[in-house]
Amino acid sequence: MPEQGSDILCLASDYMEGAHPAIIDALVRTNRERTSGYGTDGHSERARTLIRAACECPDADVFFLTGGTQTNVTVIGTALAPWQGVVAAQSGHVSVHEAGAIERGGHKVIELPATLGKIGARQVEACVEVWENDVNRDHMVMPGMVYISQPTEYGTLYSLAELEGLSEVCHRHGMKLYVDGARLAYALAADENDVTLADLARLCDAFCIGGTKCGALFGEAVVIPVHDSIPHFFTQLKQHGALFAKGRILGLQFEVMFEDGLYERIGRSAVEAACRIREALVERGYELYFDTPTNQTFVMLDDQRLEELGRRVEMDFWERIGEGRTVMRIATSWATTPEDVTRLVAAL
Amino acid sequence: MPEQGSDILCLASDYMEGAHPAIIDALVRTNRERTSGYGTDGHSERARTLIRAACECPDADVFFLTGGTQTNVTVIGTALAPWQGVVAAQSGHVSVHEAGAIERGGHKVIELPATLGKIGARQVEACVEVWENDVNRDHMVMPGMVYISQPTEYGTLYSLAELEGLSEVCHRHGMKLYVDGARLAYALAADENDVTLADLARLCDAFCIGGTKCGALFGEAVVIPVHDSIPHFFTQLKQHGALFAKGRILGLQFEVMFEDGLYERIGRSAVEAACRIREALVERGYELYFDTPTNQTFVMLDDQRLEELGRRVEMDFWERIGEGRTVMRIATSWATTPEDVTRLVAAL
Amino acid sequence: MPEQGSDILCLASDYMEGAHPAIIDALVRTNRERTSGYGTDGHSERARTLIRAACECPDADVFFLTGGTQTNVTVIGTALAPWQGVVAAQSGHVSVHEAGAIERGGHKVIELPATLGKIGARQVEACVEVWENDVNRDHMVMPGMVYISQPTEYGTLYSLAELEGLSEVCHRHGMKLYVDGARLAYALAADENDVTLADLARLCDAFCIGGTKCGALFGEAVVIPVHDSIPHFFTQLKQHGALFAKGRILGLQFEVMFEDGLYERIGRSAVEAACRIREALVERGYELYFDTPTNQTFVMLDDQRLEELGRRVEMDFWERIGEGRTVMRIATSWATTPEDVTRLVAAL
Amino acid sequence: MPEQGSDILCLASDYMEGAHPAIIDALVRTNRERTSGYGTDGHSERARTLIRAACECPDADVFFLTGGTQTNVTVIGTALAPWQGVVAAQSGHVSVHEAGAIERGGHKVIELPATLGKIGARQVEACVEVWENDVNRDHMVMPGMVYISQPTEYGTLYSLAELEGLSEVCHRHGMKLYVDGARLAYALAADENDVTLADLARLCDAFCIGGTKCGALFGEAVVIPVHDSIPHFFTQLKQHGALFAKGRILGLQFEVMFEDGLYERIGRSAVEAACRIREALVERGYELYFDTPTNQTFVMLDDQRLEELGRRVEMDFWERIGEGRTVMRIATSWATTPEDVTRLVAAL
Repeated sequence: MPEQGSDILCLASDYMEGAHPAIIDALVRTNRERTSGYGTDGHSERARTLIRAACECPDADVFFLTGGTQTNVTVIGTALAPWQGVVAAQSGHVSVHEAGAIERGGHKVIELPATLGKIGARQVEACVEVWENDVNRDHMVMPGMVYISQPTEYGTLYSLAELEGLSEVCHRHGMKLYVDGARLAYALAADENDVTLADLARLCDAFCIGGTKCGALFGEAVVIPVHDSIPHFFTQLKQHGALFAKGRILGLQFEVMFEDGLYERIGRSAVEAACRIREALVERGYELYFDTPTNQTFVMLDDQRLEELGRRVEMDFWERIGEGRTVMRIATSWATTPEDVTRLVAAL
Repeated sequence: MPEQGSDILCLASDYMEGAHPAIIDALVRTNRERTSGYGTDGHSERARTLIRAACECPDADVFFLTGGTQTNVTVIGTALAPWQGVVAAQSGHVSVHEAGAIERGGHKVIELPATLGKIGARQVEACVEVWENDVNRDHMVMPGMVYISQPTEYGTLYSLAELEGLSEVCHRHGMKLYVDGARLAYALAADENDVTLADLARLCDAFCIGGTKCGALFGEAVVIPVHDSIPHFFTQLKQHGALFAKGRILGLQFEVMFEDGLYERIGRSAVEAACRIREALVERGYELYFDTPTNQTFVMLDDQRLEELGRRVEMDFWERIGEGRTVMRIATSWATTPEDVTRLVAAL
Repeated sequence: MPEQGSDILCLASDYMEGAHPAIIDALVRTNRERTSGYGTDGHSERARTLIRAACECPDADVFFLTGGTQTNVTVIGTALAPWQGVVAAQSGHVSVHEAGAIERGGHKVIELPATLGKIGARQVEACVEVWENDVNRDHMVMPGMVYISQPTEYGTLYSLAELEGLSEVCHRHGMKLYVDGARLAYALAADENDVTLADLARLCDAFCIGGTKCGALFGEAVVIPVHDSIPHFFTQLKQHGALFAKGRILGLQFEVMFEDGLYERIGRSAVEAACRIREALVERGYELYFDTPTNQTFVMLDDQRLEELGRRVEMDFWERIGEGRTVMRIATSWATTPEDVTRLVAAL
Repeated sequence: MPEQGSDILCLASDYMEGAHPAIIDALVRTNRERTSGYGTDGHSERARTLIRAACECPDADVFFLTGGTQTNVTVIGTALAPWQGVVAAQSGHVSVHEAGAIERGGHKVIELPATLGKIGARQVEACVEVWENDVNRDHMVMPGMVYISQPTEYGTLYSLAELEGLSEVCHRHGMKLYVDGARLAYALAADENDVTLADLARLCDAFCIGGTKCGALFGEAVVIPVHDSIPHFFTQLKQHGALFAKGRILGLQFEVMFEDGLYERIGRSAVEAACRIREALVERGYELYFDTPTNQTFVMLDDQRLEELGRRVEMDFWERIGEGRTVMRIATSWATTPEDVTRLVAAL
């Protein structure tokens, strides 16, 4: 993969960037502070307060972790009972791209077919009812949680109505709902989006606010709306190797992102850039694999265009779809510039 | 715990600091680079090359992780066979302060009594021979690895002769040797030390070079001297939630620390400061709990001195030893200044 | 479920019976023997020798366990590397009816759609090639083993050609093949069957010979054709809680079943009874859900017939298929008598 | 190890025997019954009722498992929370002779030094208070349960007062108490014993009534006095590979042992035989390693006596104690005859 200095334009992923200038500045500014560890410092405390306010959820537990798979493994592994599994889309990150980390933690991922990365309340209800109605259910894995991502791995969004539907089904059947928000800033910034942080806090049992792909140097914030609903979470973090010694470094970043609403703005330019890219692609006769409202764009390329465009733009391989056609992902980020978009459009 | 701005002098731990200026500078300088993820970027590659050179071990596998417990859990869990346990000092970090993370990963910690944090080759040999000679050994946990820390949790050091002894016993009995170097820079900088990075690479099956406590913003480097001796380590990192997406951020820090020998110098001022503190303590009639050659100092305080000194200096509680006496730990770091030492001495 | 003395005819499952008279006799006859434990006794040794001979595999490792799920969990858990998962039919016992025991052991069950309980070599090859060809395969679970059952949960059989195909694909791609023979006696006794014990030993990396459902009081024999190919299996049995103290009780039963070919005969009457039942069902106008060559019969019943037949015959609920129709399973066993069949036919 | 027919007298262990005649008779008598599986049959139901009555605990949950390690692993693994460990004697079966099965299940065994196999309430309290009072306790394993065996691995007994003390400490500190009764019949039959089944049910959170070593062909009964205090235990049994398909075979044996008080009598002859053996040993000038009130005897033998006696009597190696002396264990059982004792005494 080409590095800095290369003539190629990098739009392969949203974790290729550094940190938002405000975060780098804060790290520089506070570098000589000496603070206590493990999230007990003042920056972490303030970040928690700010996130609780943004989520309109004053009693929420908030923890800061270093990465997305770590977050999913720890939340799912600690929220499920040993006899439970987690329901997820077949295309979900936990199903396919975490190397079996959930199963390593002892839990089955009960995979449902997805539509553009999404699963629906009826699907979930059918799945849990199969278990509830089976005479042999005590020999089977109980669905104990639903995992979804917002936006999904396909860049699509759950609407508020869809999320409310999932939440209602989950809670009516004694299941928890967990939302993986690794790219949440790009959901919050999308025109189509009608799900707020407060909605997530109201409807989910846990969710994460992604920093790594959304402007932080690194870090994910886990929000557990009901205090202590995952008991001894701090110790369980430690057991999972997910407790960060210099908690300040994580807390500080979320403090910056939530003290003046940066997190809710930071995805906006990425979404706008993605929209311009999609428009340009369509104008130039490229075919989108499916439409998306967030920062990820999926375009079908024949072999010639793949070869030509690939020489100028670093994209992410998504899928080979036969007949000499390939789907490539173009991901913008908070750091994508107007010049990047102009260069891409010129390369089409 | 007091924060920045407090009048109190913070010497409680070596993970209370930010990053060495050279690292902060590098993070700022490279912030707009776009690089591939998961350690495949150029900075990580260069850091690996530099570490291999420093270890005189050109074929070593080198991986960068975010924290110490995560590192121990992942290395021990992937290097042991399922029927094996890890031998460690009763006072070892994996035995007592990782919340059972090793056991959560399925392995017993076989605890040996320690002398000032250290275990010896004869102890280890006796332990493994008990297993080898037991008629019921197939019903018992096979010792598969020895875990030690350098410096130890007590700030003490293994000499080269001691390390060679442990290595010889381990390998003669088919066990691996793993050295936790969370504070390794403070070992390398100690006058008493005669163990080099190259010695570690020659004698161990895996070791880690601690960044978090030694000048990095965060991060630990795992060195596995024999290439691929822990198979599929990358995938197993992912499974453990220990694969860091923006690998550049970790690789860059180790690149800075190894490109001109910074890592081997960075602990020097901390050790010198600790020596001055120990001298001053003894001069003023304080009693050391035991002597140490590195950055940690253990002083016994009666209740009155504890109260008085505690008002001016943030120390770490170590142990209550009866008769109204308490052992407190004073930890210097690469960031401890001459003024800090002067203030402490004035407070005695 | 009705018990002894009830007027109802019990044909719901093949684990409802006691033991074959020859086994009960042997247990009575040897009851006052004092033997060493854990399978080191003479009966276990002789049973191993007899099984090796029946499998034409003189170097095989043979172990005796108490139950089927225990056997699957232990074999799969010890044969897979930590980063591997097991490929199985969606309808496979490990996928659906072991309460997530494989995942509790840390491994993903990679489920493939099945045809009457079976998966094919091409399906498996496609699955492993997806992994092999994915640029992100190091973030994914490696298929490390294929699990099939012979006969399947649907009573169907793999032909020798099919088994050879699976074996070839597995070994060409570095995967293991494991056959769950919980009902193996009913496969060996089927007219259609062309797979011998020696074939299993030649083609598989591990398989089990079911006793519990096939005439033993209880017990399963695990055969590992290549000696020590699962290292420290004895200790790993212990770790899994699957090492049986009074090994003689298990070994003796397999000694009886293999000393004069009883195991290869014992399923014959069950299969014949099942054939007569299927013929009678068809004659009386009942519709089979699908045809099977072994001891299990799947019949579709409308609500009226379900109610009427259900009053006289204990069957096993299989599946509701809409429009007021239900599939019920009728399972014969080695203990099913001609009178049982006559009673059933009379009840149709 | 010598088998039946050998001239040597086998007194090495109490799991070398078959089953009590009443149990063999019942297995023969009921062999043609067809019953439902997994403990839902009438014999299992009746056995549960009888055990509840014997324990004076009408609401207890009772489950039947096949072996001792399996029982310990399943009870401890399901009763502990993920962040908890189990406190046990260093000499406890779970500490030393279960091949790390508890750790494989994710939990630390917190080992306390034992006195003749026993740990005391004060020791346990000191251990839990260390955790409670440690400022870093959230980084440590919480003691969540105490494991003891009755009788212990050394054949010694907890008195009622000792058991009450342990129970009181456990419950005052929020810990559970689990008693491994693998040899419980030999405790109940000892003159010194003052702990009844009802006491165990009153004082423990779970205990097991051992069948394998106490007259059953095989099997252990787990008693959980408070109904559903280990949730979904049935499904968790399945997950642990510990759910026995033909539950009747286990239930029947406990039905026989509890329908007329057989279990409480069955150890009596073994204890009497052991007493006669101990008397004879002392009379002939042998030295006991320590005295025991149950069916196990520990005698110190010099090399000559070891060699001579070893030719006539199969004993169990216990420990080499230097100076050419060895401790051997002589274990009687319910099946030991007066002739066995006479032969042993003659051999001294």
